[in-house]
Amino acid sequence: MVSACIIAIGDELLNGFTVDSNSHWVKSKLSSFDVEIQKSIIIPDRKEVIKSELDLCIKQKYNYIFISGGLGPTHDDLTKKSISEYLSCPLIINQKYFDKLKKRFSSHYKASLSAEEIKNIDNSVITQAQILEKSDSISNFIGTALGMTFIEQNSRIFVLPGVPKELRDMFTRTIIPKYFMRSTTKQVITLKTTGITETNLFNLLKDTISSTEILKISFLPHFTGVNIRIEGHGSNLFDETVKKIKDKLNDFYYGCDNDTIEYVVSRLLMKHKISLSIAESCTGGLISKKITDVSGSSKYFKGGIVAYSNTIKERNLGISSKLLDKFGAVSEEVAAEMCRQVADCFNTDVGLSITGISGPSGGSKNKPVGTCYVGLFFKGETLVKKFIYNMNDRSINRDIASFAALNFIRLKLKDNK
Amino acid sequence: MVSACIIAIGDELLNGFTVDSNSHWVKSKLSSFDVEIQKSIIIPDRKEVIKSELDLCIKQKYNYIFISGGLGPTHDDLTKKSISEYLSCPLIINQKYFDKLKKRFSSHYKASLSAEEIKNIDNSVITQAQILEKSDSISNFIGTALGMTFIEQNSRIFVLPGVPKELRDMFTRTIIPKYFMRSTTKQVITLKTTGITETNLFNLLKDTISSTEILKISFLPHFTGVNIRIEGHGSNLFDETVKKIKDKLNDFYYGCDNDTIEYVVSRLLMKHKISLSIAESCTGGLISKKITDVSGSSKYFKGGIVAYSNTIKERNLGISSKLLDKFGAVSEEVAAEMCRQVADCFNTDVGLSITGISGPSGGSKNKPVGTCYVGLFFKGETLVKKFIYNMNDRSINRDIASFAALNFIRLKLKDNK
Repeated sequence: MVSACIIAIGDELLNGFTVDSNSHWVKSKLSSFDVEIQKSIIIPDRKEVIKSELDLCIKQKYNYIFISGGLGPTHDDLTKKSISEYLSCPLIINQKYFDKLKKRFSSHYKASLSAEEIKNIDNSVITQAQILEKSDSISNFIGTALGMTFIEQNSRIFVLPGVPKELRDMFTRTIIPKYFMRSTTKQVITLKTTGITETNLFNLLKDTISSTEILKISFLPHFTGVNIRIEGHGSNLFDETVKKIKDKLNDFYYGCDNDTIEYVVSRLLMKHKISLSIAESCTGGLISKKITDVSGSSKYFKGGIVAYSNTIKERNLGISSKLLDKFGAVSEEVAAEMCRQVADCFNTDVGLSITGISGPSGGSKNKPVGTCYVGLFFKGETLVKKFIYNMNDRSINRDIASFAALNFIRLKLKDNK
Repeated sequence: MVSACIIAIGDELLNGFTVDSNSHWVKSKLSSFDVEIQKSIIIPDRKEVIKSELDLCIKQKYNYIFISGGLGPTHDDLTKKSISEYLSCPLIINQKYFDKLKKRFSSHYKASLSAEEIKNIDNSVITQAQILEKSDSISNFIGTALGMTFIEQNSRIFVLPGVPKELRDMFTRTIIPKYFMRSTTKQVITLKTTGITETNLFNLLKDTISSTEILKISFLPHFTGVNIRIEGHGSNLFDETVKKIKDKLNDFYYGCDNDTIEYVVSRLLMKHKISLSIAESCTGGLISKKITDVSGSSKYFKGGIVAYSNTIKERNLGISSKLLDKFGAVSEEVAAEMCRQVADCFNTDVGLSITGISGPSGGSKNKPVGTCYVGLFFKGETLVKKFIYNMNDRSINRDIASFAALNFIRLKLKDNK
């Protein structure tokens, strides 16, 4: 296993205003390869700090060092200069890239710019096209700052811009194919489960886990379920174990790796050519939003009603005031009527409904904050399920509720013939 | 200005599966005080690494060192042990906290647990209640692991659990009031703008900025606008400058600090006792979701229709097929009709509508991806505005579109008499 370290550079990453999303992204990308990230640091745009931390990392003999940020043209972009000084290796202009950049900027020259302004642009283009004499360039197809890579002592060092879109493109387009793709035999999969606690999951799988010690299996709990990460090295055992675990998980398993519950449900709806409409109360549009996050959702999703007030439940969804008065808006009976009505109103195969209390106010002794009813109408049948979960956070409560509702569709459609 | 460093400890923060949200949270909390965070690092649960990085930070003489993670009861929680070994200072049990924890866990003892299981729980309680002999404890009211603080050489060191909810509670409840509250004279405000580019903003404000050199003013651009951060130290100049800038910004300014556009709009609706309904096409429920993110939104938000397909626009929103055929679903005419119809259908003062193309597919030469029409019906008047923005990302496009729609309400209601 080779080792790596990440250095993110930028004052804005330390003063609490910009989240360093690059480091985590690089970590998750590298997790599929035989690379162990042993340190991740954020430091300011200061020459002496950049030099001393780089020195430390090189002395710690990481195989790879990833540096991001501080490649721009302004006075506080000091990354290239600092590295150049530390290594006593001059910066040179990559002529090919310089010409390309100048061409890209050429529209600026046409306009009525002063000589001063043109000079400023020229200077900026020069800085962006500079790399260490001893380095190879890494092209930037999205932004302007050229990246670079070189070897120093025991470390291969990559220097990339801090703009996330640029870094990600350069990483995916150049660094992974060129430096990581061929070297790995590592296999990784994340199995996503819901409806079972970490402890029960462990008990369910402990025999399988203990019989496969050469694989690394870890549990990662979330609000909506537990992810199981399995890592191994090119063997039949990996595939066999994944299959065994999936079989044991049965209905608790809903997808792997980048699958989201909305994506899994969308795939099921598409596969069975089933149309969907949604009546939401407590989630206020969130379930519809999630379903339409999936591109192409117009094929099966017709639309929905956000019936936030009782008047709307009556007027626009045809829930009788008698029912609302007798059982209350947050009730099994109203959830059942809501999903029937929305399927009828929108003329869809499936009608999904949700009504509940997201908090922080609105709870009572019988129906505490976090109570929620999900209704599902399909093929003449109406199912309602009650959930209670209160994480003391309105937004998390709504997220869990919408997940539960989508999972309800999955469980119903999974075995659809 | 005093200096600080943050050390987050945990294998899971390095392997790409858990984002270290604590460090950024601490940075943004401390940004209101006279503390400069000079380094932020993430290291694995490994004794020798924890010791050597702590050693380095102490030698670098940071005034404050914040350590989070690795305080749990399992074998890979090594933070307390490592610090104890490094300082040659024993860990002792905080008896008061131990008794309290044991009482909290007492329900476990009642159940039919084996002697072995009870022993395990006891051991876990002991670890969680341990702190360094030389330290003061920091109570954990949410989770189980006790925090601690002590002085070593020039640094005050805080050790906190990695669970974000626990860390935040301990930080807000104990650390800020006890160690930071009284020491600061710093004033900070973030003014949020939309509808003006960073360059134009700079030109608009350059006179004001150049006349106030002792304040630090920075621009932070986002997809939906530019935030202006102003920092200063207890002077009239701070308040005066903020007022001057706000005046110049005029309509571009929509809120400050933690204000979101949905919150600002909600405040306006509440103030003027105006009710709202929403007809969404391309945003698929996102605007309704945002409005209902605000607790108490049921006072002014009645509900909405997600009219994702043309059939629903016709059937449930009463848009004539003639209009749809003639102008297309993404058009000024349909947006206008949608907002009128939803206000009528849901019997509200304001009807908001949106129809557009979020991408990646669905665009054409005349109506490229990113085209979107927002309609607003209020007091018998219908306004429609066209926007085009394509960030090559469906989710960002939808976010910008929903922001623009909410901002449209703000601009209309701002001067409502």
